[in-house]
Amino acid sequence: MADIAKTLPLKRSSVQSAHENIKQHIHRTPVLTSTTLSRLASTPQSPEALAGTPFKGQAPARPKINFFFKCENYQRIGAFKIRGAFHALSKLSEEELSRGVVTHSSGNHAQALALAARTYGIPAHIVMPTISTPSKIAATQGYGAQVYFSGSTSDEREALVRDVIKDTGAVLVPPYDHPDIILGQGTMALELEEQAAELIKEDPTLSVHHTRRQATNGHADGITGSHVPAPAHLDAVIAPLGGGGMLSGIAIALDGTGTSVFGAEPSFSGADDARRGLADGKRIPAVKSLTIADGLRTPVGEIPWTIISDAAKVRGVYAVTEEQILSAMKLVVERMKVFVEPSAVVGVAVALYDEGFRRLVEREGGQEGWDVGVVLSGGNTTVEAIGKMFATSAKEGERERKGRLGRGGDRVAEDVAG
Amino acid sequence: MADIAKTLPLKRSSVQSAHENIKQHIHRTPVLTSTTLSRLASTPQSPEALAGTPFKGQAPARPKINFFFKCENYQRIGAFKIRGAFHALSKLSEEELSRGVVTHSSGNHAQALALAARTYGIPAHIVMPTISTPSKIAATQGYGAQVYFSGSTSDEREALVRDVIKDTGAVLVPPYDHPDIILGQGTMALELEEQAAELIKEDPTLSVHHTRRQATNGHADGITGSHVPAPAHLDAVIAPLGGGGMLSGIAIALDGTGTSVFGAEPSFSGADDARRGLADGKRIPAVKSLTIADGLRTPVGEIPWTIISDAAKVRGVYAVTEEQILSAMKLVVERMKVFVEPSAVVGVAVALYDEGFRRLVEREGGQEGWDVGVVLSGGNTTVEAIGKMFATSAKEGERERKGRLGRGGDRVAEDVAG
Repeated sequence: MADIAKTLPLKRSSVQSAHENIKQHIHRTPVLTSTTLSRLASTPQSPEALAGTPFKGQAPARPKINFFFKCENYQRIGAFKIRGAFHALSKLSEEELSRGVVTHSSGNHAQALALAARTYGIPAHIVMPTISTPSKIAATQGYGAQVYFSGSTSDEREALVRDVIKDTGAVLVPPYDHPDIILGQGTMALELEEQAAELIKEDPTLSVHHTRRQATNGHADGITGSHVPAPAHLDAVIAPLGGGGMLSGIAIALDGTGTSVFGAEPSFSGADDARRGLADGKRIPAVKSLTIADGLRTPVGEIPWTIISDAAKVRGVYAVTEEQILSAMKLVVERMKVFVEPSAVVGVAVALYDEGFRRLVEREGGQEGWDVGVVLSGGNTTVEAIGKMFATSAKEGERERKGRLGRGGDRVAEDVAG
Repeated sequence: MADIAKTLPLKRSSVQSAHENIKQHIHRTPVLTSTTLSRLASTPQSPEALAGTPFKGQAPARPKINFFFKCENYQRIGAFKIRGAFHALSKLSEEELSRGVVTHSSGNHAQALALAARTYGIPAHIVMPTISTPSKIAATQGYGAQVYFSGSTSDEREALVRDVIKDTGAVLVPPYDHPDIILGQGTMALELEEQAAELIKEDPTLSVHHTRRQATNGHADGITGSHVPAPAHLDAVIAPLGGGGMLSGIAIALDGTGTSVFGAEPSFSGADDARRGLADGKRIPAVKSLTIADGLRTPVGEIPWTIISDAAKVRGVYAVTEEQILSAMKLVVERMKVFVEPSAVVGVAVALYDEGFRRLVEREGGQEGWDVGVVLSGGNTTVEAIGKMFATSAKEGERERKGRLGRGGDRVAEDVAG
């Protein structure tokens, strides 16, 4: 891997440079809006939904939340990880490339590195836990990578990676804890801000600030008395947070733009290591969670932590339950008809169900509300896996989910992704 | 309903007129391509896949099939039916509108009429079989319609519709067997041909005919020796066929354009009534099938039959098994990340698995192959329903599906919808 001492500084211009390097290899994935999901997020939660939270007994928040979904599930390999992988390879020397690359990954990074290596015509060695999703193992092998199976602890994985390096001389491309990966993942934020601006330019009513925008543009219609110019950017972006490569990259990309950046992680059995670490003032180096958001089972990496723990760059991190993840997933899949994996929807789940976040939007966004970019990070799951997730949850949580989370009930989308 | 004697003639210009009438109310749904699905469709089936078919023991066909997917799952209410409903209402008189509308439907037409009626500010009365999908019942009620439950035979439904008409004076808007509905559904074909042309104009390599197109445009590169100009239209369009409103509308819309139109239906327990009817030379008036493609359980209507049985308008109808429908659905959902209902994928299943169709493409398309428009007609199902479909099939058919249908195995999409 490129020597960390020689990598570009972690700032917006470096993300722009990374984007130039990789854009020939990646899709500019679509940004979608959804009347239905924005309406649901702008509907107060039921008082029962606040039971067991610090907001119990208080009036539910009334935020106005207007989504712009960056659909990285439509990215090559079905997830954003291809951005970091291509950027990492673009920074290797000819000599390094000739030795091939190696990594450990339970899924999307494995496929990403395999495809990027195939594109560069070099060998890829991938260490995967034996418990990885079979479809992800098959996909990685399908891109021509050599797959090695390890136990699921990080010690076991790292030992095997060291063996592979000793045997082959391959260069390590870690899944998130490296500046080149972080800068590569951050490129999605540049596209998101640009695409949201394009959509709003084409149809100003897509922004919550359109009345003020009109006024700012000299077309005041007298309805608004505000003299504050409308922001020319998204009010916030929420991204899933596992190892933190994507979230820190997005925070760097949007630093100084006026857009607030937030992280979203699962709370199940300790996967909310970033939230806990921020509360304690120090990074938590190990996580052992089997959350259904399987891309987010890792602790935040050391370099991402330096960004994520900087409140000027990442304003906050929220955690959601398994039940909230499933509920958000059901909405995205059934209403928007967009197929996503559980890890992809933690950001939507925060906007829909985290009362702390919702109060913040109500307080700061006021009557107008916020334009909120949300990353749907990937779509690599199977219909069988989906079936199992919802078969289990249907039995255990049906009544509870309906009562607590079921705003909109079972209604099918009227207005889907537009 | 508008008197049939007064409706527009069933021809292309009437579809264009219908499109003008409804386009303010509908989405111009996206047309997507998929490198992965086109590659799979252009890969010969295994010899085992032909066992039990008339092609058993013969060499599998080697067609080149290049898909353009018209994604009506992203339509309002999640299915194409909204087109016909809005067109039907646009043709009613003020007096008729004031009486409200009534229909019987097991699903998407019910929601479509309910939403169109709400838009027009008139009452909608919907007769649904008690066995309808709960999400579809809830959605219909969610649009403000009055739902009446009947038994599942057509006699029972029709009796209840007559009762509602007697009680309320409402005007009947049938789900498919009426010229206004047919012309409305046909509007999607106008968009599909226009959008495919736009995509190909932007990136000529998206068409299988791009080499010839270049030659035709005076940029001959010497690779092709052909002097036949490239067609300026899709070679074929395949659409699902239940009552036949959509298929006959598409056939009328594309009549005279040079695009061949084909129908696709499920074969399970007699749902292939159109194919059987065409073989016998007469329409089959009743069907009793519980195919998973629940939108396609109805017999072809009388008026659609006049179009579908005209070989100059519809070149052929093919039928696919439940297993083939599930396999196509798995590919569309997992590879393209596009969430669809089973009825939506019968056209894709024909292109992937019907050896008769594949031989036709090989024979007529030759080395270049065909640009094939396929309608993905709707996306109104639930994650729980998907879970059940694939849980059952996983147990019963896993080995068989892998052996016979599993081209590409379990690989996750490299290049998804673009």
